[in-house]
Amino acid sequence: MQWWGGMQQVRTVGLLGGGVIGAGWAARCALMGHDVVVCDLDPEAERKIGEVMMNARRACGRLTLAPLPDPGTVRIVRTIEAAAEAADFIQENLPEQEEMKIALLARADRVARPNVIIGSSTSGLRPTSLQSGMRNPERFVVGHPFNPVYLMPLVEICGGERTSAETKERAADFYRSLGMQPLHVRKEVDGFIADRLMEALWREALWLVHDDVATAAEIDDAIRFGPGLRWAFMGTFLIYRIAGGEPGMRHFMAQFGPALKWPWTKLMEVPELDEALLDKIVTQSDAQAGAASIRELERLRDDCLVSVLQGLRDHDFAGGAVLKACEAALHERAHRGVVDRDSDLKQPLRLYATRVEPAWVDYNGHMTESRYLQVFGYATDGLLRLVGMDEAYFASGLSYYTAETHIMHRREVASGEPIHITTQILGADEKRIHLFHALYRTRDETLLATAEQMQLHVNTKEGRASSARDDVRSQVRRIADAHAKLPRPEAVGRSIAMPPAKG
Amino acid sequence: MQWWGGMQQVRTVGLLGGGVIGAGWAARCALMGHDVVVCDLDPEAERKIGEVMMNARRACGRLTLAPLPDPGTVRIVRTIEAAAEAADFIQENLPEQEEMKIALLARADRVARPNVIIGSSTSGLRPTSLQSGMRNPERFVVGHPFNPVYLMPLVEICGGERTSAETKERAADFYRSLGMQPLHVRKEVDGFIADRLMEALWREALWLVHDDVATAAEIDDAIRFGPGLRWAFMGTFLIYRIAGGEPGMRHFMAQFGPALKWPWTKLMEVPELDEALLDKIVTQSDAQAGAASIRELERLRDDCLVSVLQGLRDHDFAGGAVLKACEAALHERAHRGVVDRDSDLKQPLRLYATRVEPAWVDYNGHMTESRYLQVFGYATDGLLRLVGMDEAYFASGLSYYTAETHIMHRREVASGEPIHITTQILGADEKRIHLFHALYRTRDETLLATAEQMQLHVNTKEGRASSARDDVRSQVRRIADAHAKLPRPEAVGRSIAMPPAKG
Repeated sequence: MQWWGGMQQVRTVGLLGGGVIGAGWAARCALMGHDVVVCDLDPEAERKIGEVMMNARRACGRLTLAPLPDPGTVRIVRTIEAAAEAADFIQENLPEQEEMKIALLARADRVARPNVIIGSSTSGLRPTSLQSGMRNPERFVVGHPFNPVYLMPLVEICGGERTSAETKERAADFYRSLGMQPLHVRKEVDGFIADRLMEALWREALWLVHDDVATAAEIDDAIRFGPGLRWAFMGTFLIYRIAGGEPGMRHFMAQFGPALKWPWTKLMEVPELDEALLDKIVTQSDAQAGAASIRELERLRDDCLVSVLQGLRDHDFAGGAVLKACEAALHERAHRGVVDRDSDLKQPLRLYATRVEPAWVDYNGHMTESRYLQVFGYATDGLLRLVGMDEAYFASGLSYYTAETHIMHRREVASGEPIHITTQILGADEKRIHLFHALYRTRDETLLATAEQMQLHVNTKEGRASSARDDVRSQVRRIADAHAKLPRPEAVGRSIAMPPAKG
Repeated sequence: MQWWGGMQQVRTVGLLGGGVIGAGWAARCALMGHDVVVCDLDPEAERKIGEVMMNARRACGRLTLAPLPDPGTVRIVRTIEAAAEAADFIQENLPEQEEMKIALLARADRVARPNVIIGSSTSGLRPTSLQSGMRNPERFVVGHPFNPVYLMPLVEICGGERTSAETKERAADFYRSLGMQPLHVRKEVDGFIADRLMEALWREALWLVHDDVATAAEIDDAIRFGPGLRWAFMGTFLIYRIAGGEPGMRHFMAQFGPALKWPWTKLMEVPELDEALLDKIVTQSDAQAGAASIRELERLRDDCLVSVLQGLRDHDFAGGAVLKACEAALHERAHRGVVDRDSDLKQPLRLYATRVEPAWVDYNGHMTESRYLQVFGYATDGLLRLVGMDEAYFASGLSYYTAETHIMHRREVASGEPIHITTQILGADEKRIHLFHALYRTRDETLLATAEQMQLHVNTKEGRASSARDDVRSQVRRIADAHAKLPRPEAVGRSIAMPPAKG
């Protein structure tokens, strides 16, 4: 898998600085299976990084049902050297003070093993300057992430004059292996691309507050109820192209051109950040946030990002396409694991585990009905993969369809609870698999629900039942024969009826 | 319902201009039940508006499962007067040519009935100027929407010097009744708020292309994989507040202040839109769009917007909160309709109808398993509302839970198909409802699936089965008694089993 090229070479990630950005990298890397060594002198570093890790685990558990690798460890050290020596990839996340960065990057370079890349999270300093103290400047590159690092896909890659082309490519591979979207910046400029665009908008926003055209909250509303909704998946160029319609971009630009000189922005001046403007912004920002703490706001931000990314995943577009590709790679890896584990047929198969996502919970505070069938469906998918049904099998027009399902609900389960499913084959012939899923709350093995199903093999092109391919049938047979020795669950073969009327 | 205040007074909407924005208003208004009269001189207006209507129906059908009202009619007329005379609310969407707008708004004002508001979709012209030819300028207000009007929540409200406060409030009520989010602009400025922010970003984007720092597609990527993802739900002020962490906004601003003067934007100049820059942008935009037509791009944009809004709905935040409030109002209205219809108990109840959403479709191209249970669940919810269970009932700790479900799949159903469910009560006692749902493809009444369910009444606080409240029980009894005369569906009481082995 080319996708994992970057990851396979990197076991340990060294992070220089463990603030908001460094802790975000720590979380992203550890959740993707890397051991992390963070250099940070803050005596509270452990607590602070731990809090970000907790947020990240929570968010990523909601973001994807794909099987994440076993998480790596996070160790905090007190010297740049201790972090740099141990690392297969180094990422610098120190405060934006150019001279300090130059000095500490030079120290990291001195002890880092050959070929280890040193990335910098700087949001605006030039790589040519940052690499100026290094003996091996060719291994240095800017990899500028966005907050929260554990969720945001974008990472801007910008080399300095002495950065090698290979470094840029290998850094991009590594970031991609973390589920990110690298964007190569063609020319070395202050602020790269995204921050320049944000900065332009930010200056205009400050003017609007300064001139009392709008408050901080109103400006935010103008973004999030308006153009911001579209910016989640299409940038301004494509949005304008669509607005221009069939006549095309040249026509649109001709129409738009004059407006560029209209007095719609205060772009000729920079607002003075004096005490009066500062007071106004701080007061308005406090009013906007209301009683919500930063932690609460962070969780709200993360929850919204998760939902936006999941929504875009359905269309395999923009941030959703990045997520989807990452999940495909995770499934691919985990699938190999399942096939290796499948030899234990002396008990029901354990093909699916997850946590109850908040979006799965209904007004009663419990996992909603249809989500039971959804997770049972994931277990069925796992079984079908296990017996050898892959993309090519489906593409050839063969598949199992569910003909019938009987669900029994035993206990409720709350948001966030780890759950898992065991699957038993009760019977099978050339066209059918009669199976039984049991859903458990993982922490105490409480039985939550069962689903008995009849799966029917179909030729999807002809729309009729058909025999499964020989290799699939023999895999099904093998499991069915082994499972025939297991006790038959009590709930099998049930039908629904009112209890007899009381006499 | 205050929500519907604006809508109840408005039956017919008059639209001046039927281009992209006018057609978007036509679609939004018609889908919300208003009759629409559009003035447009383009001989192709009917086709063009029809195409936008089709896009809008498709998008809104995916956006919400809430029961939309019966759609209004759309009629195209050839004079301003014909549109203005018939209308209870007038919206102007003519090209951005100030003198033409002033003249045609004056004509509309002359024939519009008293108290009818005249809104303008101008994206930047000042209302004081636009109302200058009107006899009743107090009824004029800017209501600036965003493309596509039928999906985007934001509408900026800006009055001119002679606009009355009542006009601004009534216009906001009307837009809110259409499911939009009005934002009052405190001060009359060119470009209002959102367009000024977009314009600042756009100028910087043009510089980046001009200077070959990035292509159009790369700039769009810098937005949509980065800050644009966040802007879908939080504006820059709140995002920066969160980035600043516990020390608060003043600390963040102090840290950020100096950067405002760094050379991160080319804000001192306006790029000259000469032929060379135009060529570059057009070429890059063509490359970015590839083979996709404008119609395809529009549908992709709409699908992504739908998913983003649905994702945010889960958190009742930003655009999702607007959608959720609108849906609550739609349910409230439709619920009244259901209660009125419930007297026909001589046949199974028809409590739920929808279309198969694209996101419900699996890799086989058919509605995925768990979605069957989801739509059956909506029908159960409809039944429970019908027998008198409301928010207060749930809040008091009483509810029905599904104890058992038996689903039989009969036929597949494809994306976009209208479907509906009929519901029959098979039996009931003080704690149980034994019911039977049948899911049909609406166009030919093909039976797709059935679900037999046992609903158990519970005291959710004590976590045990309990009797339903008397009024709910008697409603259940009344339907059960009537339904006892209906034939018993064949599938009732089934259990799952392998067929007997062949001899």
